[in-house]
Order: sequence, then C-alpha cells, then structure tokens
Amino acid sequence: MNTEKNYHEIEFTWPEGFYSDGVNTGMREKRPDLGWLYSETPAVAAGVYTTNKVCAAPTALTKKTIVQSHKLQAVVMNSVFANSCTGKQGEKDVALEQTLVAKKLNISPSLVGVASTGLIGAYLPMEKITAGISKLQGKKTDTVTKAVMTTDTRSKKISVSFKLGDQLCTLTGFAKGSGMIHPNMATMLAFITTDAAVSPAVLQKLVSELADETFNQITVDGDTSTNDMVVVLANGLAKNEELVSSSPALATFKSALHHVLAFLAQSIAADGEGATKLVEVNVDNAASTQDGKKIAKAIVGSSLVKAALFGDDPNWGRVMSTIGATDAAFDPQNITIKLNDTLVVDHSLAVKFDKTAASDDLKGSKVTIDVDLHDGESKGQAWGCDLTYGYVKINAAYHS
Amino acid sequence: MNTEKNYHEIEFTWPEGFYSDGVNTGMREKRPDLGWLYSETPAVAAGVYTTNKVCAAPTALTKKTIVQSHKLQAVVMNSVFANSCTGKQGEKDVALEQTLVAKKLNISPSLVGVASTGLIGAYLPMEKITAGISKLQGKKTDTVTKAVMTTDTRSKKISVSFKLGDQLCTLTGFAKGSGMIHPNMATMLAFITTDAAVSPAVLQKLVSELADETFNQITVDGDTSTNDMVVVLANGLAKNEELVSSSPALATFKSALHHVLAFLAQSIAADGEGATKLVEVNVDNAASTQDGKKIAKAIVGSSLVKAALFGDDPNWGRVMSTIGATDAAFDPQNITIKLNDTLVVDHSLAVKFDKTAASDDLKGSKVTIDVDLHDGESKGQAWGCDLTYGYVKINAAYHS
Repeated sequence: MNTEKNYHEIEFTWPEGFYSDGVNTGMREKRPDLGWLYSETPAVAAGVYTTNKVCAAPTALTKKTIVQSHKLQAVVMNSVFANSCTGKQGEKDVALEQTLVAKKLNISPSLVGVASTGLIGAYLPMEKITAGISKLQGKKTDTVTKAVMTTDTRSKKISVSFKLGDQLCTLTGFAKGSGMIHPNMATMLAFITTDAAVSPAVLQKLVSELADETFNQITVDGDTSTNDMVVVLANGLAKNEELVSSSPALATFKSALHHVLAFLAQSIAADGEGATKLVEVNVDNAASTQDGKKIAKAIVGSSLVKAALFGDDPNWGRVMSTIGATDAAFDPQNITIKLNDTLVVDHSLAVKFDKTAASDDLKGSKVTIDVDLHDGESKGQAWGCDLTYGYVKINAAYHS
Repeated sequence: MNTEKNYHEIEFTWPEGFYSDGVNTGMREKRPDLGWLYSETPAVAAGVYTTNKVCAAPTALTKKTIVQSHKLQAVVMNSVFANSCTGKQGEKDVALEQTLVAKKLNISPSLVGVASTGLIGAYLPMEKITAGISKLQGKKTDTVTKAVMTTDTRSKKISVSFKLGDQLCTLTGFAKGSGMIHPNMATMLAFITTDAAVSPAVLQKLVSELADETFNQITVDGDTSTNDMVVVLANGLAKNEELVSSSPALATFKSALHHVLAFLAQSIAADGEGATKLVEVNVDNAASTQDGKKIAKAIVGSSLVKAALFGDDPNWGRVMSTIGATDAAFDPQNITIKLNDTLVVDHSLAVKFDKTAASDDLKGSKVTIDVDLHDGESKGQAWGCDLTYGYVKINAAYHS
C-alpha cells in the first residue's frame, strides 16, 4: 500500500460521463425506492458478489453479466424487495428490468446490471418497477444513494480526485447496508464509478484484493445476505493511459480506490442497525495476515463485546475470551489489549486502570481496540458497531 | 439411540453416596456463591471441556485431574469470579482450593475438581473462598445448583431413575449457563452424578458423544467461554455389574444420560440471557449428520432470526439466508421450511400462509423450526433462544 496520499477527498460529484437518478415508485411511501446510474459509454466493470449459496436473482444476473465481458454501462437498483428466493419468476423479473433499461438507453441488455435489497421471498411489483424505470433520467444528483437505503439512517457516499499522468480523474462510490452485514462480500450494495481508464484484469484484481481488506472485514450482525455486491465501473473518459499491471500510476489509483472502499465499509459499520458507535479493531504482530484478520473480525463480531461497548464497559475479559475462541494461531499467555489507548491487559494479565475514566472514554462515537499478539509481524483490521436496544427493535419490528 | 424409555424422571435427589452444599461467602450479597458436591467413595469421572484457547485455571486443572486417572471424589465450584486470565496467581488459587477441599474430606487433592464461572480477569478473593470451604457440609439439598448461577434466572436440574439388572440407579444432573453460550463445550458448567457403576472408558465415550448432540448444539450468543465443562461422576454405589462397552444394559444408561444432558442443554438455551422463548431447530434429510447439525446450529445462532422470533415475525427469508451462508452441502432450490408446523417455504419457494395466525402462533414459550433439505437421510438438531432487549440490557449493564 502506498502510504503517500496521491488523492484527496472532494465534494460529492459523478465522474466524467456518469449520470444517475432516483424516483419513488410507490414501493415505499415517499422516499425514492428505485434508481440507476449509467455511463455515456460502456465501462470496464469488475465486482465481488455474495458468497451466500442462496444467491438472489439480481446478484446472480449481474455477476454473470460482468463475468462474461467485464463491461457494463448501467446498473438499475431498488430497495424494499430483495427479489431473493423468488425462483423462475424472480429470474424473469430481473431479465425484464435489464431489457427495459437497455431499451431506454438504446444499449445492449448485456451492458445492464441489476441490484435489489430488502425483504427476501416477495416478488417484485413489476408494474411499479416498469413505470419507475420509464421515469428515470440522466442527472448529476445523489438521489440514487438514497433509493437503495433500507434501515440505513444516512446515505454513504464519497468522491476523491487524483491525477494519472496529466489527467485529473474522479472516483465516486456509494453504498447501502445496515443489517445482514457480515463476511465475504455478501453484505451490502456498493457501487464505485470512475472516469479513469483501467484494464479489466487490473480492475478485477484490485476490487477483489481491496474488498477483502475492507468490506469483508466489517460485521454488524454476523448474517450474510443473499443479495449483495460491490461493483466498480471505469469508463476511461478521463483519457489517461489505460492502467495495466505494470503502470507506475497504478499505486495512485489503488490507494484512492482503497480509500473509497475503506470509507464506505466503515460508514456501513458505523451505520449498523441500531449502532451508537463505530468499533475499530487493530491486531498487531499476528503470526499471519489471516490470523490477524480472523481475530480482528471475531472481536467486532462478538455479541458480548458489542453489548459491553454499548454499555461503555471496558470489559476486556470478553475480548480475551473471543480471541481464545478463534482457531487463529496465537500465544494465549502473550496478549496485550488497549481500549481507546488505555492499557487493560499486558501479556494476558490484568492491568490496574481507572475504570471510571476508561468507561467515560468509551462514550464517544468511535471505539478503538488494539490487540498486540507479540507473535509475528502481520496485521489485521476490522470494523463493526455496538449491539443495542435499537438493533433488537429494528429486527424484531421489521416484519416480513 | 434406544427409543424405548427405560428410565423415568423423578423428584430431584442425589444418587446414593453423593452429598452437596452451598453457602454465601460474601462474593455476592446474599445468594449462595460457593458450593460443592462429593461422593463418599471415589467415583469414575469423565468430562468435556472448553475448546477456548484461553482456558481458565479451574477448568485446566479439572481437566488435567480427570484425564490422569479418570477418578474424582469432589468438585468445588463458585460463581461471581471466573478465575480466568489470572496467570500464575490463578493457578496457585485453584491449587489451594483443591488442597482445602482434600484436607476437609481427608482425601487426595488429585480427587478434587474445581470450577468457576463469572467475571474474567479478576483474582479469586481467597479469604472468602477459604472461609466458605470451611463451612461446607454434606447435605442432600440442591443449594449447589443455585451457588453456580450468574445471570441465570433459575436453577437447572433433573433426576432420573432406571434399572441396571436388578439394581435401581439414579442419575442427577444440574447446569448453569445463560450467556457466553456457544459451540464446542466451553459454554457452561454441568455436573452429572450417578450411583451406577460404569467403566471409565465407556463413561468418557458416552459423555463425549452425547455432549456433541446436546450441549454442543446450543447457542445463546455465539460466544464460547473460557471456563466451562461437563463432568460426570459415577460412584458405583448402586452395585450394578459395571457397565462396559459390551454390556446389554448400556443402552438403558445411555438413553437416561442422553435425556439428562438434552434436558439440561435445552434448559440452558431456554434460560439464555434475556430469552423469552426456547427455539428448537430440526433439520431433516441432510446430506450428512455434520451438515444437518451445522445448519441447525447456524439457524439458532443467527441474530436476525433470533430478533425476528422475539418479534413473533414468521420471517423465513432470514432462515433461508442463514442456511445459504453456511458451508454445509445442500441444494439451494430444494429447501422446505415449517415454523411451528406452518409451511412457509416449499422447495425454496414462498408459500401463501396466514401471517397473522403464524405470528400469533410464535408468541408461545417454544418455537420449532423444521427444515427439510430433501437431500440425504441425516438429521441435525439445535437449540437456542430469541434475541431481546433483555439480552442487550444484561450484557451492557453487567459491568466488569
């Protein structure tokens, strides 16, 4: 990873040649529930998709479409209904969506991706969807980022700017996700657009690699959805020399893409259902990257740790116990833990600390748990949120 | 498994030659917090222990003690403090407990097991423990079942009676556990006593095998504790012919032991922290027993399923999604699900059903989820509970 920042965040904007819109179709009362984004020219496309074996129709179709040619020009997306567990009818519906968008843009259906999020097991109301698609326009607004929200409390979006050679490029991403957030991509929708020119092989490699360090290291509730995907579109309209694996400028693009994916992943964790705080776990000196990532993710995934943090409780015993329950390699006698920089365990032994001060210190909107395994030289990071009354309320009330 | 019942439940009683007691040492305000059980003669002992690599001092010592000779005559146990993550001091303290009990009973320390449950990372208050041990007597009461309670709302205990040859035998078990309840034994304390004579090898084999089908198939919160164990003591005072692997009467003992372990495991799940209902999952026609058990356990472990059940919501989409996220073998197009006998998914497609009636039907104290995979001929079962405001409250408030 290039540590020098060759990019900077800018106000939300769509990259050159990308347009978007969102409308209300009546699937929900007022808020936009259907949206799209498209590029004026076909874009190089890459993605990662749910590992859930019960894969929803839109996700399966988009994956198939991208894998065929690594090209995509438009993605249509809706909230409210996931079009998952809908059998042949679900496949028909998603094919119809693809066709409607293709006709409207006068492009091939094989250049259209489809995404859905919402309730599993209900058919899409195709009259509403059809009418909605007919209303979509080519705008530069951010409405689409709201159209995919379900229990999200805010839209999650970011734009960064960077130079490739002499060409100024923009990278813009947005994501939705709040519940059913767990491992292995499968966990939310994220769309990233850029006007940079990138070869399909490089784009796919970067997305797979960086999603592993970002989206695949967040968890809200340990549940992996049937629908989710991260899709990146690169239309090349910035006119830079196409990035290939040997390009010197690749490091710049990679660091910018990493920043966007990490920002969106952390935003999803912070907006986890019912969450009052973002939890970041940094594991240092692990025997391997795999071990570090596994331990970091186990800690942000522990219900007991999450509930303790909701209660501002510096309960490091639950962190120790969670580490111990993983199948990662580590020395149980050699674990050091800091909660928001307060040393609480030193080489697996309790340290005296001011519990009231430590508890007060956990009341903020972000908690950092640093774990030193004193074992190897690898690192692992993960992000999650606390477990709250709000989570239970949302998920007991969100009726099917 | 012998399906004919050769045993029957009786009022709680200790088997021949077993005695017990519990006292308050001041670790908590009023309720008993220290207890023991012992046999008047050395008993054959077998156990299963936490798989958490951060294994607490008492659990490590008891395991070591049992493994050495498969003999035990007494077990001393306390709540409030887990004596976990306590290093050399924790090992000293547990050795002292062993010695104190041995002296008091005039037996070898190598016949004494120790168990603790409670807060991780604090040292045992040895003055209180020492004074408490000096007060313990040999009674036939059930106070010890209360002395190990932490966030448990009720003690969990059972006695069954059966005949081996002409000899009437008693099998009595109790357990504690409410939070940190998850896989692989490691998840609560359970002690089972019997006056039946059983060979060490057979006893160990039965405990390992039956714990796998019972205690290892419950989950409350996915967290595996550092302390827990299931220990069975068989003192042989019923004077039956010692059970060996070829004994015809072994089936009777096995079915009685299975009943006791299953009862205690389900009692723990039903008394999960904050639980309002017991959830039982039955997976049928799985490709293998492993697949069946894995899927059953994943369903009772899903936060989204658990929260939906708290809300009396027949949200089968979350069950489907959970099945899909496992790495078990199954056909995603061929899943049939019933919630409390209401068919909701047939071969992976939504079935129309009366949602109000189905929701009303989920309001009871037990919910059964039946999953038919139409795949092989194996089964899997698991037990858990719903995810409630109470769980969050208990675990955000239970301060370290």
